[in-house]
Amino acid sequence: MSHTRAYRDGKIVGDGFPLDQVSDYLENGDCFVWVDFESPTQKDLEKVADELNLHELAIEDALVPGQRPKIDRYENFLFVTVYDTTFDGESGDLVTSEVKAFVTRRAVVTIHDASFDIELVRKHWDDNKDLIDHGVPYLLWGLLDAIVDRQYQVADQLDDQIDGLEDGMFDPKPQTMDVQRRSFTLRRSLVELRRIVTPMREVLNTLLRRDDMNTTKGMGPYYQDVYDHVLRVTEQTDSLRDLVSTILDTNLSIQSNRMNLVMKKVTSWAAIIAVPTAVTGYFGQNVMFPWYGTGLGFAVSSAAIVVLGVILYLQFKRRDWL
Amino acid sequence: MSHTRAYRDGKIVGDGFPLDQVSDYLENGDCFVWVDFESPTQKDLEKVADELNLHELAIEDALVPGQRPKIDRYENFLFVTVYDTTFDGESGDLVTSEVKAFVTRRAVVTIHDASFDIELVRKHWDDNKDLIDHGVPYLLWGLLDAIVDRQYQVADQLDDQIDGLEDGMFDPKPQTMDVQRRSFTLRRSLVELRRIVTPMREVLNTLLRRDDMNTTKGMGPYYQDVYDHVLRVTEQTDSLRDLVSTILDTNLSIQSNRMNLVMKKVTSWAAIIAVPTAVTGYFGQNVMFPWYGTGLGFAVSSAAIVVLGVILYLQFKRRDWL
Amino acid sequence: MSHTRAYRDGKIVGDGFPLDQVSDYLENGDCFVWVDFESPTQKDLEKVADELNLHELAIEDALVPGQRPKIDRYENFLFVTVYDTTFDGESGDLVTSEVKAFVTRRAVVTIHDASFDIELVRKHWDDNKDLIDHGVPYLLWGLLDAIVDRQYQVADQLDDQIDGLEDGMFDPKPQTMDVQRRSFTLRRSLVELRRIVTPMREVLNTLLRRDDMNTTKGMGPYYQDVYDHVLRVTEQTDSLRDLVSTILDTNLSIQSNRMNLVMKKVTSWAAIIAVPTAVTGYFGQNVMFPWYGTGLGFAVSSAAIVVLGVILYLQFKRRDWL
Amino acid sequence: MSHTRAYRDGKIVGDGFPLDQVSDYLENGDCFVWVDFESPTQKDLEKVADELNLHELAIEDALVPGQRPKIDRYENFLFVTVYDTTFDGESGDLVTSEVKAFVTRRAVVTIHDASFDIELVRKHWDDNKDLIDHGVPYLLWGLLDAIVDRQYQVADQLDDQIDGLEDGMFDPKPQTMDVQRRSFTLRRSLVELRRIVTPMREVLNTLLRRDDMNTTKGMGPYYQDVYDHVLRVTEQTDSLRDLVSTILDTNLSIQSNRMNLVMKKVTSWAAIIAVPTAVTGYFGQNVMFPWYGTGLGFAVSSAAIVVLGVILYLQFKRRDWL
Amino acid sequence: MSHTRAYRDGKIVGDGFPLDQVSDYLENGDCFVWVDFESPTQKDLEKVADELNLHELAIEDALVPGQRPKIDRYENFLFVTVYDTTFDGESGDLVTSEVKAFVTRRAVVTIHDASFDIELVRKHWDDNKDLIDHGVPYLLWGLLDAIVDRQYQVADQLDDQIDGLEDGMFDPKPQTMDVQRRSFTLRRSLVELRRIVTPMREVLNTLLRRDDMNTTKGMGPYYQDVYDHVLRVTEQTDSLRDLVSTILDTNLSIQSNRMNLVMKKVTSWAAIIAVPTAVTGYFGQNVMFPWYGTGLGFAVSSAAIVVLGVILYLQFKRRDWL
Repeated sequence: MSHTRAYRDGKIVGDGFPLDQVSDYLENGDCFVWVDFESPTQKDLEKVADELNLHELAIEDALVPGQRPKIDRYENFLFVTVYDTTFDGESGDLVTSEVKAFVTRRAVVTIHDASFDIELVRKHWDDNKDLIDHGVPYLLWGLLDAIVDRQYQVADQLDDQIDGLEDGMFDPKPQTMDVQRRSFTLRRSLVELRRIVTPMREVLNTLLRRDDMNTTKGMGPYYQDVYDHVLRVTEQTDSLRDLVSTILDTNLSIQSNRMNLVMKKVTSWAAIIAVPTAVTGYFGQNVMFPWYGTGLGFAVSSAAIVVLGVILYLQFKRRDWL
Repeated sequence: MSHTRAYRDGKIVGDGFPLDQVSDYLENGDCFVWVDFESPTQKDLEKVADELNLHELAIEDALVPGQRPKIDRYENFLFVTVYDTTFDGESGDLVTSEVKAFVTRRAVVTIHDASFDIELVRKHWDDNKDLIDHGVPYLLWGLLDAIVDRQYQVADQLDDQIDGLEDGMFDPKPQTMDVQRRSFTLRRSLVELRRIVTPMREVLNTLLRRDDMNTTKGMGPYYQDVYDHVLRVTEQTDSLRDLVSTILDTNLSIQSNRMNLVMKKVTSWAAIIAVPTAVTGYFGQNVMFPWYGTGLGFAVSSAAIVVLGVILYLQFKRRDWL
Repeated sequence: MSHTRAYRDGKIVGDGFPLDQVSDYLENGDCFVWVDFESPTQKDLEKVADELNLHELAIEDALVPGQRPKIDRYENFLFVTVYDTTFDGESGDLVTSEVKAFVTRRAVVTIHDASFDIELVRKHWDDNKDLIDHGVPYLLWGLLDAIVDRQYQVADQLDDQIDGLEDGMFDPKPQTMDVQRRSFTLRRSLVELRRIVTPMREVLNTLLRRDDMNTTKGMGPYYQDVYDHVLRVTEQTDSLRDLVSTILDTNLSIQSNRMNLVMKKVTSWAAIIAVPTAVTGYFGQNVMFPWYGTGLGFAVSSAAIVVLGVILYLQFKRRDWL
Repeated sequence: MSHTRAYRDGKIVGDGFPLDQVSDYLENGDCFVWVDFESPTQKDLEKVADELNLHELAIEDALVPGQRPKIDRYENFLFVTVYDTTFDGESGDLVTSEVKAFVTRRAVVTIHDASFDIELVRKHWDDNKDLIDHGVPYLLWGLLDAIVDRQYQVADQLDDQIDGLEDGMFDPKPQTMDVQRRSFTLRRSLVELRRIVTPMREVLNTLLRRDDMNTTKGMGPYYQDVYDHVLRVTEQTDSLRDLVSTILDTNLSIQSNRMNLVMKKVTSWAAIIAVPTAVTGYFGQNVMFPWYGTGLGFAVSSAAIVVLGVILYLQFKRRDWL
Repeated sequence: MSHTRAYRDGKIVGDGFPLDQVSDYLENGDCFVWVDFESPTQKDLEKVADELNLHELAIEDALVPGQRPKIDRYENFLFVTVYDTTFDGESGDLVTSEVKAFVTRRAVVTIHDASFDIELVRKHWDDNKDLIDHGVPYLLWGLLDAIVDRQYQVADQLDDQIDGLEDGMFDPKPQTMDVQRRSFTLRRSLVELRRIVTPMREVLNTLLRRDDMNTTKGMGPYYQDVYDHVLRVTEQTDSLRDLVSTILDTNLSIQSNRMNLVMKKVTSWAAIIAVPTAVTGYFGQNVMFPWYGTGLGFAVSSAAIVVLGVILYLQFKRRDWL
C-alpha cells in the first residue's frame, strides 16, 4: 500500500498518483514529492530506490525492523529512523512503532507498518500549510514534529500515572501488590521510552549542526523547537525514572514499617491472651492450692484474668503498640 | 492585564502607558522599554510581536505552558523561559510558575500567569537603580537575578526541612510514617527543583559565552554572579538528593533494627510466659505424680514457676534481649 | 590448523594453499590474501609475521588470551581484538571466544581457538560476494559484521529471558529461588556482554574517523552500519541492566509484601486457635465455677468456643487478614 | 579587627600598621601587601576597595556568607572563596568556615569570621620564607596550600572513622543503632566535604591554565602540588562515599541475617517448649486413658517429655538452628 | 639502602657502584643510569637531586608517603608515583606499596620502602634485554609494565574470589555471615584498586600524548601495550564492582526469601502442634462432656488428635509450606 503526493509553488499538484509517475514530477524542476509505503516488499522499494538513487544498505535497513532511532547521512540522501509511541493506560505498557524515511533534496519517502497511522503526519502537514514553501525541509520537519509531539504526550501520561501511584502508596488500605506491579510496568515503560527518546537528541543535533544537504534550510527555528521538545521529554523521562525508583524505595520502607506495626500487635495480643491460659493453668493443677474446688477460687481466678488482661491492654495502648 | 515602562537617560520616562505607545518610545533613539503581560491572549501578543518583529514560533511558545527553562536565540531577539519557585513548608511541595521573556535590543517583554507576582521583579529593578544605564542588559539581569534568588531560597528551605528529617529519624519514639511521607515529598520536590535549575546553567552560559546580541554588555560580572548562584543551587540540590536517599536507606536500616529488637522481646517474653504454662500443665495431669493433691505440691509448683521465670528473665536481661 | 585464501579481480584465485605460498600471492600486485590460524603456536605466527612485517608485540598479544576488545594501530598494520558471544539459554551463562586479526594493506590474518567456528565468518563473506572488489576493507568488514551480528542476537536472547523473568515474578505461586538465581545469572551475563560490547564502539570509531590505512575505503556506509549495530547493542544492554536491577528491587518488595501477608495470617489463626485453649482452660480449672461438672457446662463451653471462633474469623475476614 | 603586613626584597618591612598606610606601601614600587579582616563591616572593606579599585559586586560577595568555592576573575583582581574544614571526631560532624580573598597584582586581602584562625595561614607563610621573593603568588599559594592541607587531614580523619565503623559492623555484639547513626553522620559529612572540595579543582585549574594576571608566576610546580592534593582529596572522598554506602548495604544484610537467626531460634525453642505442653495436656484429660491416675502414668508422661524434648533439641542442633 | 646500575651500548657497564660515581657515568655522553633507594632519608636524596638538578618539591613528594598515582612534569625531569599491589587471598585485603621515580633524560631514580621488592622490576628489565638500546624509555617502561602486570594479576585474583562468592551464595547451607564479610572485604578491595588504577590511565596518557621529554621515544607500541593493560584492569574493576553490588542485592533477596520460608514453616508447625493442645484442653474440662471419664473418650480424643494433625500436615504439604 502506498500514498503519493507532489507539491509545487506551495500547492499540492498531485495526490495519489501511481508510483511510476514519481519520476515525471521530479524531472519537473520545481516540484517536490512525498511517497509513503505501508509494509513494503523489497521489490516495492527497489523501484523508488532506482529513481532516487538510494544506497542498497539503506534499503536493507528500511526493510529490517529493530533499527535504533538514528540519522544516516549518505552522499545524496538521509536515512532517518524514529519511533512513534502510544501509552496503554490500562496495562501501563508502552506501544512503539518504527517509522523510517529517505530524505533526498526533492523527495521524502516514508516507510512504516500497519501499526502506525500515517494520517497523523499528513494531518500535521496540512495544519501547517503556511510552511509549504520550504519544500523538503517542511516535510521532514512535519514528520519529526508529529512523532516528537506524540512522545511528549506519552511522557505526560506517564507523569499522570506516577502521580496516581504516589497517591496509592500512602493510602491506609493499600493494594500493595498493585503498586508493585504498576510501578514495575511504569519503570519498564520509562526504560523503553528512554531508549527511543535519547538517540533523538542526536538525530536533531545532526540535522541542526551538520546540515550539508540543506534539509533544515530556512526552518532552523522550527527544528530548534522540535529539539527543545526532545530535550524536555528526555529531562522528564529522567525525572520520572528518579521518581519511580524513589517510589519503589519508599514502598519498601512503608511495607517494612507496616510489618513492624503488625509484629507489635501480634506480640501485644499474644501476651494478653497468654494471661488467662496461665491463670487457668494455675487453677487447673491437681495440687492443693488455696481455694481448691471452692467458689471463692473461681472468683479469684476470674478476677485475676480480667485484672491482668486489662492492665496489659492499657500498658500496650500507652506504648502505642495496639 | 499589562504593565508598561519606558526608560531614558537612567530615568523612568513613562509608566503604565497604553500598549500602542510602545512604538512611540522605541522610535525615540535612546529609550528602552519594558512590557509585562499577565495571561495574555494571542491577540495581545500579536500587537507587540508586530511592533518588535518577533517570530511566530516564539509567540506560540510564549502562549503554550510547559516549556523547559531555555534560551532560544532568534536573529533579532532572545526568547527566555525560566521558572519561579516557592516552597510550601506545610505540605513539602514545590510550587512553580513559568515566566517567559522576549529580549530585543531595546525592549524586554515579560509573560506570566496570575501565580507569579511581577512586583518581585519590579522591586528588584528599583533596588538596583544604579545599574539602569546599562539598558536592556539591566532589565534581563534583574529578571534572572530575582528568579534565581528565589530558587536559592527554596534550596535553603529544602535544606532546613531535610535537617528536620534527620533529627526526626533518630528520635526514640519516631513517627515513621511521617518520616517516610516527608522524605518522599522532599525527594519529589528536589527532583522537580533539579529539573528547573539544571537547564538554567545552560541559559546563563549561553548569555555569557555567545553574547552576539549584547544582552549582557557591560554587566558581565553581574551575570557571572547569577551564574555562580545557579551553580550553587545545582550543587546544593545534588547534595540534598544524596542526603535524602541516604535518609531513606538509613531509615530502612533503622526499621529493620527496630524489628530485630521487637522480635527479641517477643521471643523472650514468649519463653518466660511458657514456663508457668508448662509447669501447671505438669501439675495438672491426671496421673499419680509425687505430691498429687497435696499442699506441698502447690508449693513446689509455685516455686518452680517463680524460680524458672526469674532465671529466664535474668538470662535474657544479661544478653540484652529485654 | 590454518586456512588460506587469495582473491584477485573479485574472484577467489587460491584456496587452502600452503602457508609458504602466501608471499607468492602478495608479490602479485593485485591480489589480497586471507590466512586463518586456529590455536597457532608462536612458530606458526612468526613465519607470517616475517612475511607481513608484523611487530613482535602484536604477535605476543595474538598469542596471550584475555586482551580487551581493541584496535592497535601500528605503522604498517592494524591489530584487532574482538569477542564472539553465544548465550546458553539453559544456564543463562554467556560464552565468549576471543578472535584476533592482523590487517595489512593486502592481507588479513585471523587468529582464534577451537571454540570459535571461523566458518561463520567465511559464510558471511561468501554471502556478500558483491563487495569483494573492495579488497581488504571487505574482509575486515565481513569479520566485524559477523561478530557484531552475533552480539546483537545475544542481546535479543537476553531480552527474551528477562521478559520471561518478569512474567515469573508476578506469578501467584512463584519459584522465588529460581527468579533470584536466574536474575543474578542474567545480570552477570549483562555485565560481561557490556564489557565486550562497550569497547567495540571505540573500535568502530577508530576505523571510521582515523582511517589512515584505508581499511574502510569505499565501504564507509557498511562500517557505519556495523557501528549502528554496536550502538544498538550497547543501548539495549544498558536498558536491560536497568530492567534487571528493577526486577531485583521489585522482587525484594514482592517478597516483603508476601511476608506481611504471611504474618497477618499467622496472627489471625493464632488468635482463633487461642480461643478454645483459653475457654477449655477456663472450664478445666479445679475451682467451683458455675456448671462445674454438669452437661450444661459442656454446652456453655462448646458454644463459647464456636461463637468466639466464628466472631474472630469474620472480623479477620472483614479486615482482609485472612 | 584587621592584620596588615608589607613585604619588600624578601623581608617583612611592615607589620600591624594601620589600614590607611596600605596606600603608602603600595605606592612604593617594589612592595607587596597583605591585609586581613575578621568579620569586617561594609565600611571597613570600602576603604580598601577604593584603594585597590575592587568591584562593588565582589565586595558584596565578600560580605554575604554562603558563596560556593570559586574564583571570580575581574579585570584587575581575582576574588577567591574557599572553605576551611575541621572534623569533630566526637559527633562525626564537619565544621566549615568560609575564607575569602581579593588578589591584586600587589596585594592580597583576606576576609573571614571568628571561626577561622588566620594564624594557620600566617604560620604557613612563615614556614616557607624561602618563597617570599615570588610576591603575591607566594601569598596566594600559602593561603590555598594551608586550606587544602586541612581538607586533606579531614579526609584522612573520615577515613579512620570509617575504618572504625567497619570493625564495629562485624562485632558479634554490635551496637547497631550506633553504626547507623555513625554511618549516617559520616555520609553527611562526606556529602558536605564533597561540596567544598569538588569546586576546588576548578579553582586550581583556572589558576594554572588561565593565568592572565600572573598570580602563579614562577610558582607553577607549587600550585600543581596543591592541585594534586585537591585531586587526592576528591578521589578519597569518592572512595569513602562508596565505602559508606557499602557499609549501609552490608549492615542491612547483616541485620536481615541476624533476624533470620533469631527467627530460627524462636521456632526451635517454641517447638521444644510445645512438647511438655502437649504431653501434659494429653495426660490431663478427664477421660479413661491407660495409666489414668497411676504412678506408671506419671513415669510415662515424664519420660515422654524428656525423650521428645531431647530428640527435638538434637534435631535442631544438627540443622544448626540452635 | 641503594642499588645502582649504568648501561652503555646495550650492556650493563656498572652495577652496585657507590652513589658518588653516578656523576662519572653521566658525564660519559652515551651512558644511562639507574639508582634505587629503599626508604631513603632526605640527605640521601639531596645528593642525587643536586647531581640531576631535581626540584625540591619533587624531593619532598618523594619523601612524604600517600601521593596519588600521577606524573608531574617538571622542566628537566618527570616525577612518577605508582602503586604496587598484592592481594591477600586469606583475608581478602589489598596490600599496596608506593613506588616513586624521577626520570631525567639520562637517569631513572626509583624510591620505595621495604614492602616493595625492587627485584621484581630488575627481573623484568633483564627479561627484556633486547629493548636495552632504547635507554631511559626502556627503564621507565620496564618499571610501569612490571607494576601494571601486578595490578592485572590482582584484578584476576579478585575475579576468582568473586566467582567463589557467587557459588557460595546459592549454596543450600550457606555461611551467610561469611558471604557478607567476604563480599564487603572484596568490595573495599575493589574500591581501593580503583583508586590506584584509575589515575594510571592519565599517567600513561600523559606519557603517550605529551611526550616532550622523549621518555617513550621509539617505544610507543610498548607504552600503548601498558596502556591497554591499564584500560583492561579499569574495565574489569568496574565490572567486578557491578557484580559485587549485584551479589549484595541478591544476597539480601535470598535472605528475605529464606525468612519467608522459615515463617511459613513456623506457622505450619505451630498450627499442627496447636491441635493436640486444643483437643486435650477440650477433654480436660471439668464439665460433663460426652464420654467424660470413659475409655471411649480416650479413643475419641486420640483419634481427633491424629486425624486433625494428619489433615493439617497434608494441607500444608500440598501448599508447599512444609
